[in-house]
Amino acid sequence: MIAPLTYNLEEHVVRLLDQTLLPSREHWLRIKTPEVMAEAIRMLRVRGAPAIGIAAAYGVVLALRVPVDGPHEEVARAIEFLEATRPTAVNLPYAMARMRRVAEAQPRQQWALRDALLAEARAIESEDRAAGRKLGAYGLEVMKPGMSVLTHCHTGGIATSGYGTALAPLILSRERGMGLRAYVDETRPLLQGSRITAWELGKAGVETTLITDSMAAHVMKEGRIDAVIVGADRIAANGDTANKIGTYSLALVTRAHGLPFYVSAPLSTVDFATASGKGIRIEERAADEVTRGFGKQTAPDGVHVYNPAFDVTPHHLISAIITELGVLRPPFADSLAEARQRIATG
Amino acid sequence: MIAPLTYNLEEHVVRLLDQTLLPSREHWLRIKTPEVMAEAIRMLRVRGAPAIGIAAAYGVVLALRVPVDGPHEEVARAIEFLEATRPTAVNLPYAMARMRRVAEAQPRQQWALRDALLAEARAIESEDRAAGRKLGAYGLEVMKPGMSVLTHCHTGGIATSGYGTALAPLILSRERGMGLRAYVDETRPLLQGSRITAWELGKAGVETTLITDSMAAHVMKEGRIDAVIVGADRIAANGDTANKIGTYSLALVTRAHGLPFYVSAPLSTVDFATASGKGIRIEERAADEVTRGFGKQTAPDGVHVYNPAFDVTPHHLISAIITELGVLRPPFADSLAEARQRIATG
Repeated sequence: MIAPLTYNLEEHVVRLLDQTLLPSREHWLRIKTPEVMAEAIRMLRVRGAPAIGIAAAYGVVLALRVPVDGPHEEVARAIEFLEATRPTAVNLPYAMARMRRVAEAQPRQQWALRDALLAEARAIESEDRAAGRKLGAYGLEVMKPGMSVLTHCHTGGIATSGYGTALAPLILSRERGMGLRAYVDETRPLLQGSRITAWELGKAGVETTLITDSMAAHVMKEGRIDAVIVGADRIAANGDTANKIGTYSLALVTRAHGLPFYVSAPLSTVDFATASGKGIRIEERAADEVTRGFGKQTAPDGVHVYNPAFDVTPHHLISAIITELGVLRPPFADSLAEARQRIATG
Repeated sequence: MIAPLTYNLEEHVVRLLDQTLLPSREHWLRIKTPEVMAEAIRMLRVRGAPAIGIAAAYGVVLALRVPVDGPHEEVARAIEFLEATRPTAVNLPYAMARMRRVAEAQPRQQWALRDALLAEARAIESEDRAAGRKLGAYGLEVMKPGMSVLTHCHTGGIATSGYGTALAPLILSRERGMGLRAYVDETRPLLQGSRITAWELGKAGVETTLITDSMAAHVMKEGRIDAVIVGADRIAANGDTANKIGTYSLALVTRAHGLPFYVSAPLSTVDFATASGKGIRIEERAADEVTRGFGKQTAPDGVHVYNPAFDVTPHHLISAIITELGVLRPPFADSLAEARQRIATG
């Protein structure tokens, strides 16, 4: 497991992996102030909704690193500008709300306040890590030792506290000596697979082979793949799953080869207000992600480009949705609703 | 139609498109000697088996551009080193054999010899162009005006005398005002689709939209595609077709959407000695095509990469094979054998 950041208790600094330099350089920043943490979040040095929430939480703690005049005022100010760094998913405001609650309940003594804030930040991190381990453990229920598992995009540890969603079973299998092997789609246009997933699985000691997106079907035909696992950006109430562009194509070729196709995601990803994938709007992104993605122009000037960022995989192509409550099977309209019920009734 | 080279009769020079500068620059070389033509072939400034054959044929003519002492000796020397430029498909030695035959049959007078060689080079070019137009015309038999046609890799005009194989119907439809629209896969890892096909179709006036390989299935689901057409590197006797990696994946997602999948290739591409795709060996290429294809490193050092250059699309996924003898339908074992018979009996 590679955590994207760690809090050093002796020096009260955050060591944070600068993800903008991957995959060619592994550089760890030493962050001492909430301002520098805010810059790291804004510049995508740390990314992924859970990881951003955790980074911002530790960023709040750093407001009390050295003696200050008004500890509560400093903390309130830090929470405010850290929360404004990115208009991202629910995790950042959620983490900041928790830190705010702790600050309001604590005495004015700076070091006691810092200890309380640090404990809360660690709780946010360890809850995410426990959820990741749970996803991983449930994911492993559907895998066998030595299997080769293909994944798409990056849904891994360094976007979270260390385990991620789709990568959790692969990383956990390594920790348990189960030895799953990974094939990774490079994931055009932004290459999250080759830039980040391949790096992270390599660091975690997972045997990893990189391919281009277009090779998946051929690799399956050669018998090299036993299962496919992907994350999710949004899951509709019937199980239709929006995820990084290319996921739908991968699900089709997986089905054509009779292999299982798994989605791994926390239940917070399920949007019960959306009945099916038809209700999910697909973001269209800039042409230059395709035409000049990595340092040089690879398409003629002025060519028309269609660049949808996501696609929707219909539920009938999904073998199971792996959640923190267990492995959900079709029909997903029922199994998702039942899981929702279990959360609501605690 | 964009011819990759033209012979200028007044000045006796060859204007040749430097394909290594595409897509960011369109630069036409003026070639006056067989030596410079040989360099252009070796450096891939002109590429594609038919185009190389034509370029070498005109290269031979250039040996007699200015008065020389022994015209036949000069021509023989030029044929020899032009033939050695690339260990490519059958077209280069075929063209050189034709030029050699003409040289041997002609009188020693330099200008008469040059005229005869020029006539032969033009014949090689115009035969290829006629074959391309034929492929295009048969391809259009299965298309309707206004259709959107998706293609993969580059099988276009500038790899031949101007029409190519899979691109022939698209280019011809423009000339006939039939207005087919094109979607082009960028075709990782070497990006022939975005670098060359998108450029060439744009120049030919075909409305073209570029996508990444992973988007094809999504684009089909949105109803944007009416048919798919690809070229072939080798077709087995039963119709199994080896083509650029990603073709098999594309054929699977095309079938999943109930769309027709066409292969367009001259009958010389059919290898009747190979019974099925199982007999076709797949070339594996260097890792850095995947890990540093765009001008900078996009994957971690030392990652294992699997980079097959081709895949095999089984015949049952192919709706028709378009050849210079017409549109062949399944079962291809029969229709290909029958076409072979027609060629043999002239």
